[in-house]
This record gives sequence, structure tokens and C-alpha cells, in this order.
Amino acid sequence: MVREFGLEEGINEVIGITIADWVNTAPIGVIVDEGIRVRLFENHTRKFVKKTGILYVNVIHDPVIFVISAFEDLSEDFFESLEPPVIKNALSWIKFKADLKGNYAHLSFIDGGVLRRDCRAVNRGFNAVIEATVHATRYVLNRRKDLLDKIKYYGRIVERCGGKREKEAYKLLMEYIKPSKAEADGPGGI
Amino acid sequence: MVREFGLEEGINEVIGITIADWVNTAPIGVIVDEGIRVRLFENHTRKFVKKTGILYVNVIHDPVIFVISAFEDLSEDFFESLEPPVIKNALSWIKFKADLKGNYAHLSFIDGGVLRRDCRAVNRGFNAVIEATVHATRYVLNRRKDLLDKIKYYGRIVERCGGKREKEAYKLLMEYIKPSKAEADGPGGI
Repeated sequence: MVREFGLEEGINEVIGITIADWVNTAPIGVIVDEGIRVRLFENHTRKFVKKTGILYVNVIHDPVIFVISAFEDLSEDFFESLEPPVIKNALSWIKFKADLKGNYAHLSFIDGGVLRRDCRAVNRGFNAVIEATVHATRYVLNRRKDLLDKIKYYGRIVERCGGKREKEAYKLLMEYIKPSKAEADGPGGI
Repeated sequence: MVREFGLEEGINEVIGITIADWVNTAPIGVIVDEGIRVRLFENHTRKFVKKTGILYVNVIHDPVIFVISAFEDLSEDFFESLEPPVIKNALSWIKFKADLKGNYAHLSFIDGGVLRRDCRAVNRGFNAVIEATVHATRYVLNRRKDLLDKIKYYGRIVERCGGKREKEAYKLLMEYIKPSKAEADGPGGI
């Protein structure tokens, strides 16, 4: 059923959208095997799912959207529709009923739509932005140097293989993970 | 012009098809900036381009096709058409005039077609197959352990995030890069 909207077996990297106190957006990995589920940590997506029992997802291939939504909520300007919530240039949207059990939300299809389809060659720069984003969301929590090395490794692939949009996404990513002034100054700083 | 057929700014990972003594297939990276060009090493793609002055490309998202064509030619069974050459499930095809200059073939658009469009969520397993394939084509030439480590790193992403097709592609990849019997036995082997 979800296949026609772009979710296939494996982990589908999509933008999760939950609407409660505000419109909350975050990249999430929807796991499709015998069932459909998503791991939700202690974040707003989880809190809003708990409140409403509803999770929307958008299938989209815009690297800038993945980077921004990994670090903050997309403002309404990024949407082409809010009912259902559809980010500009998203390929499809799905509305799920979401039941929290332990670390997972188990998802049941309610509704969905395909807005457009893509014909674009594989771009390693795009893929590298996705990998860099995964590492960056961990890096901001622990500042581990091995994660920063990986982020920079993918940055070199973005530089070589990416287009304008991938380069813009990576530049944004590096801004988001910059140490805050307090961190940069270190414990002895003023 | 090539944008409507799926090639955008940056390096486009596509399947190159050249037809001379036989139908030769190989993953190639088509660079789109002010012009369109592709780096061709001493391989059959280069030889056949030299003979015919023509390069076809297919935009496709099938991980198995990338792996097989990295190591051998796709047999005719893999094609849904031979005139123009279109691999089953390819999204589009383009015919280029190709002029060799140094390490590059400079490409001019002749003709093209879009056969289908995609609506599929980003899958890190698919992306990992592409990265593993890039490293694998180097690894078979020099057997460097750091390349094998990278291939195995991406293998773990395929295992966790990929679908059946990605897992099949990675399994094939590992078969292609297995040391031959002579190599496995080592210099002292019988």
C-alpha cells in the first residue's frame, strides 16, 4: 500500500511532520518490513505523536530540506500545503495513525498522495549530504572528532560531485554544527 | 537541455552504453557544468567511443545494474530496447556525440527520451551500494585493505537500511571482488 507513495522495504529516509503545539518537522527513518514503524527518541516528533496519534511523512529529494529539518523546524514558507502538510517539491505525502510502543511508533496507513515524480540521475553529492547529516546530528551531542572527520569526508564528495543545491545544503550543515561561542572559547574562556 | 532527461549540475552517475564490436556497458560519471563531459580511462567505453563517436547513457536507480555493469557487460536480456539502448527500468536515455580530448570525452546532446519517473524515498542502503561499488572497482586493481574496510562499512549500511534489491546488489559485489584462486593461495600457493 505505502509502496505506491514511495516507501519500500528497508529504511526510508523521509521528513516526518507532526502537528500539535506547532508544525514540527524532522528527518525520520521509516522501517518497512512485515509492518511499518519508526524509532522515535525523546524529541518533539515523539511528544506530538503521543498527543495526536498522527504522523505525516513527505517523500522528498531536496538536500537543503533534510539539513534544515535535522536542526530546526521548517517554517510555513517551506510548505506548499498545510492540510495535508506538503513541503514544496515533495514527491508524495502519507498520513499515518501512529501507536507508540517502547522506542517505536507503529504506523498504519490512513491516506496519501503522489504530487510529482522524478527523473534524476544518481548524485553522490546528494547521498553524501544525507550521510553527513546523519553524522552531524550525533556530532552536535558529543563533539566526537571521528564524527567530524566523517562529515568532512562527505563534504569532499559534495564538493566534487554535488550541484548547487547539495553545496548549499552542506554549507548550511557546517553552520548548524559550528561550536557555539561558549564551546569555542572553552571552559577557561570569558 | 539534458536536465529534462535527468542530468543536472554536478556529477551524474549513470550507465554508459557504447555499441561497436559488442554492446558495452559501464557506470560512468557525466559531469555537467558549463559543458558536458565524462572522464574515460583506458577501457572499452573509451575504445568504442573512439570508434563510433557516440555515447549513450541511461539514468537508472537499480543497484544491481550498477554493480553488474561495474564488473562486466550487461547481456541483452537486461535491455528492454536496443535501438536506442534502454536497460529494463531505466528512467531515461540520452544519445550523445562524443569527442575525445585527453582524458575526457566532450558530449553534445543528439537525442533522448524519458520512459518513466520515480517516486521513491531516499534509501541509505542504495546510496551505500553506489559508494561500495566506487571503492570496489579500485579495490580489485590494488587490493588495498583501507578500500576493503570502506566496502565493508557500506555493507553494514546496506544490511541495516537496504531492501532486497540493495542486499542482492551488495552480495553480487562481494562475489565480484573475491580474490581469484591464484590470489587467495598467495605467491607460495600451489
